[in-house]
Amino acid sequence: MAKIVRINMTKKEVLVEAVPEKYFMLGGRGLTSQVILDEVDPLCHPLGKNNKLVIASGLLTGTTAPSSGRISIGAKSPLTGGIKESNAGGTVSRKLARLGIKAIIVEGQPEEKEMYIVKIDKNEIVLLPASGLENMGNYDTVKYLKKVHGNDVGVVSIGQAGEMLLSIASIAVTDMEGLPTRHCGRGGLGAVMGSKGIKAIVVDDEGASEQLLEIKDKEGFTAIGRNLAKTLIETKVGLKNFGTASLVDPVAAIGALPSRNYSSGDFAGKEKINGQALQNFILEKGGKYGHSCSPGCVIRCSNVVHNKDGEYLTSGLEYETLGLCGSNLEIDDLNVIGTISFKCDDYGIDTMETGVAIGIAMEAGVLTFGNGDEAIKLIDEIAEGTTLGKVLGQGATVTGKVLGVKRIPAVKGQAFAAYDPRAMKGNAYTYATTPMGADHTAGNALPGRGAWVGPVDPNKKDNYQEASRDLQIFATVLDVMGFCNFVGISPVEGEIIAQLLSKVTGEEYTLDDVKEIGMKTIKCEIKFNRLAGFTKADDRLPEFINEELLPPKNLKNDITDQEFDEVFNL
Amino acid sequence: MAKIVRINMTKKEVLVEAVPEKYFMLGGRGLTSQVILDEVDPLCHPLGKNNKLVIASGLLTGTTAPSSGRISIGAKSPLTGGIKESNAGGTVSRKLARLGIKAIIVEGQPEEKEMYIVKIDKNEIVLLPASGLENMGNYDTVKYLKKVHGNDVGVVSIGQAGEMLLSIASIAVTDMEGLPTRHCGRGGLGAVMGSKGIKAIVVDDEGASEQLLEIKDKEGFTAIGRNLAKTLIETKVGLKNFGTASLVDPVAAIGALPSRNYSSGDFAGKEKINGQALQNFILEKGGKYGHSCSPGCVIRCSNVVHNKDGEYLTSGLEYETLGLCGSNLEIDDLNVIGTISFKCDDYGIDTMETGVAIGIAMEAGVLTFGNGDEAIKLIDEIAEGTTLGKVLGQGATVTGKVLGVKRIPAVKGQAFAAYDPRAMKGNAYTYATTPMGADHTAGNALPGRGAWVGPVDPNKKDNYQEASRDLQIFATVLDVMGFCNFVGISPVEGEIIAQLLSKVTGEEYTLDDVKEIGMKTIKCEIKFNRLAGFTKADDRLPEFINEELLPPKNLKNDITDQEFDEVFNL
Repeated sequence: MAKIVRINMTKKEVLVEAVPEKYFMLGGRGLTSQVILDEVDPLCHPLGKNNKLVIASGLLTGTTAPSSGRISIGAKSPLTGGIKESNAGGTVSRKLARLGIKAIIVEGQPEEKEMYIVKIDKNEIVLLPASGLENMGNYDTVKYLKKVHGNDVGVVSIGQAGEMLLSIASIAVTDMEGLPTRHCGRGGLGAVMGSKGIKAIVVDDEGASEQLLEIKDKEGFTAIGRNLAKTLIETKVGLKNFGTASLVDPVAAIGALPSRNYSSGDFAGKEKINGQALQNFILEKGGKYGHSCSPGCVIRCSNVVHNKDGEYLTSGLEYETLGLCGSNLEIDDLNVIGTISFKCDDYGIDTMETGVAIGIAMEAGVLTFGNGDEAIKLIDEIAEGTTLGKVLGQGATVTGKVLGVKRIPAVKGQAFAAYDPRAMKGNAYTYATTPMGADHTAGNALPGRGAWVGPVDPNKKDNYQEASRDLQIFATVLDVMGFCNFVGISPVEGEIIAQLLSKVTGEEYTLDDVKEIGMKTIKCEIKFNRLAGFTKADDRLPEFINEELLPPKNLKNDITDQEFDEVFNL
Repeated sequence: MAKIVRINMTKKEVLVEAVPEKYFMLGGRGLTSQVILDEVDPLCHPLGKNNKLVIASGLLTGTTAPSSGRISIGAKSPLTGGIKESNAGGTVSRKLARLGIKAIIVEGQPEEKEMYIVKIDKNEIVLLPASGLENMGNYDTVKYLKKVHGNDVGVVSIGQAGEMLLSIASIAVTDMEGLPTRHCGRGGLGAVMGSKGIKAIVVDDEGASEQLLEIKDKEGFTAIGRNLAKTLIETKVGLKNFGTASLVDPVAAIGALPSRNYSSGDFAGKEKINGQALQNFILEKGGKYGHSCSPGCVIRCSNVVHNKDGEYLTSGLEYETLGLCGSNLEIDDLNVIGTISFKCDDYGIDTMETGVAIGIAMEAGVLTFGNGDEAIKLIDEIAEGTTLGKVLGQGATVTGKVLGVKRIPAVKGQAFAAYDPRAMKGNAYTYATTPMGADHTAGNALPGRGAWVGPVDPNKKDNYQEASRDLQIFATVLDVMGFCNFVGISPVEGEIIAQLLSKVTGEEYTLDDVKEIGMKTIKCEIKFNRLAGFTKADDRLPEFINEELLPPKNLKNDITDQEFDEVFNL
């Protein structure tokens, strides 16, 4: 029987609860957001005892559907002050599903600073003291926990940053190799986990074989999943060969690749960090491309990167990191960007928020654009807890305020992803209107995406209002299901999901029903944010996006307030 | 003829405009707030070219009404992100009135960092380069400007902090001795002035004799003013003898004197910093009490304080500074608190926001409660621009975030005044609901105040909803008129103002008409804030006020959200 695990860190008490019926058909982001709306005071301090950290497998995680193993983590965000969900691949989601755990709700907090390990296996869920792990990075933490609890466990953990309650702290999830490389990066959820006094959650699914989701027509479901897998394998060859780094060229081509703290949309060194360059680097130094980040993923866009000396450097070197810690900082050295990626993963900080914050510090003259050594040193300062490190640790918006930089590329207090919205109008809509802050995964209008609503030239706003709305809805559906974003955010995949859900329930699901699932979650998130004090004034891009022309295409924002408000009309 | 001076700092252009009729009966805060609502995009960056700095004399400034010489300065605040007005005494307001200048509106900003002096006399208004004054404190700036422009000029200026665009930067106004001791302290208006590239405004009223306000019945007006003056002289003896320091004892008695970053409402060293202690200190070391802060003030609550060696230390050592830089930091040495006051005035920072931010840094362990030397050193760091100084320079809220302190005594991003709202329910209402952030001058429910609505025990919320509303309305009226807060925030003074306005206009003003003046301004401010993204969720006290019991009376907030919302029902 599917269950919810409720961990009260004030009382150090673990309760196992039945799943309320209203949560049966929710999973992932749909479930985390609904629990937060149901249980969290929108005005609570994000790092206080009244916030809750909710961890949920996708609705389809553990089934035969391909690429459905993502794990969603949600809370009121210390970065945005609003609701937040951030999801990652890795092995833990499927392990939780096999243990029949639909969600973990962590509430309360220890009176004094104490850190614990939550150990979950098929027999029990216990809290163990995290003695000896204090102030330890994710890599060593996971290494230690695997030594104690077995090599096959999955681990959700925080590094130094989460313990330090930094608003850029991420939550790491172990990957297929058992390394803490998959991160729920955005929104400072690592700080919420730290504030609860939890250093790591160790999940051992040995001997477990529960089925989270009851499927009425298993054979029919598996057949549809198999077809989907076949399509994904056939169509995502570019991602398999070049990873998300394959985005560098097309994003630069439309003039949206951030450079020099979002003062340019192109970068002279782009060919040193693009998909081909990364593939060459991997072929030369060792490592791997075409690598799955979670079990059952057939897209295999991930990679393992070795350093210039041929030793393990980092895993999952992604476009967002290349864009925000590379081109945005004018750094074109893959060895340096890989080092940044590793350190961010180890300290447990979001590479995206970190890259943007460093770009702001560079604009302020604290360090120099293009200087990788200085950037690495500054990242070390974050973990060391110097005053400057603490400033960066609060993210781009606070860094800009403290260092006196007005060009702060952020919405709702969260930094832009690696697409300048002046040259990518679809993401202008998405950044401004998603309840999540300037996320790309909330509805990434990549070149070509959204074409079902009509012609979509990324530089022109034309059809992007409707396209962004659709993309946001479909992206949310994927997040609910536990599907990876690359399964596809379009009506085509929406139809497939409708078919899958029909097989699950034995009832006919239409595309509209599927869209309704996405919209229901978005509405729930907007409701929370409104109660937390957000208004339409928060659904706006920063002033410089309206005023400064972005070279090389010399574009600025031309979407009106009304057009932003019409995306959801809520 | 009354005029408005519009200074465009992009074009370096000064325009003199007629006063639009709708502004005729507005002055002070009423005028600054209305101009900001009329002319400033609520979503603009507070330190960008689209914000405006508005300086206005009170409606009655320059008339024979006593204690009516305050100057209001307003803008969108870099501290709160909402509308802000902050007013001060000093000599400039009356000089502007004598020059017939009802308001100065500064707009635009230089492309590059350049600093200017605005020189105003009866013949012309010119922009002069501020060469040699860069990074100079207010005391030296004023000394220099008086040497160049004559000893009798009035000066509005910023210190290092305003030039550094710190959100705690104040604007100094010269006092009766020509020293920069009267400050529009709150909300970071000094940073807005700095962002406009204006180091100082020098006002020379020699030979000027304009009358800002046309008064229909001058004799009748003067007679009422004379009566008011007589009453003030007779009833404000305590303020004359002990200054605002006379509040230390009664506020401590009700358990609302902040100590140890608002973790206690009483302070063991209170007798070393109370009214009697300050009077003794002045009598012993030299200096002066019973001193007027602006021409025509008969209340004379100000002082000049000499240091332990008998030399000039500071002027206008006020209760808020004693509470926030004294008891709140567990500092009980008047020489130290006076030094802090002087340095804050010189660097141009708000003693209140600074005191609260330092209290937070003390709670974080950056320095030690009670250690005056460390506190002074930290204030020096603000002007030096160290990273820690820059953090403190962004005020209490950012300091708390960066240093990881959850007890942040602030509303709308602005620190509490020196009254803990748990033990002073009237100020709980005022802090939460004034559009200004946690100001005391917005409607200070001092013990006894508000009694016209019924019994008012400061520890009980009883009648304070209505009392706070009335106090906020009457306080706003005083701010519109240019009256000092100590003229009195009650229906009694409301009636007197009605009589004065009747004599001005020749039309019958009632108490209700006067309240309508206050309410109109408050509505205008709330409207701006709503457009800037504020909601009722911003009309709340921080979570710890609802949860932590405040010793010695062990009180916490018991006012409900609904009760807060009913204050203005807007």
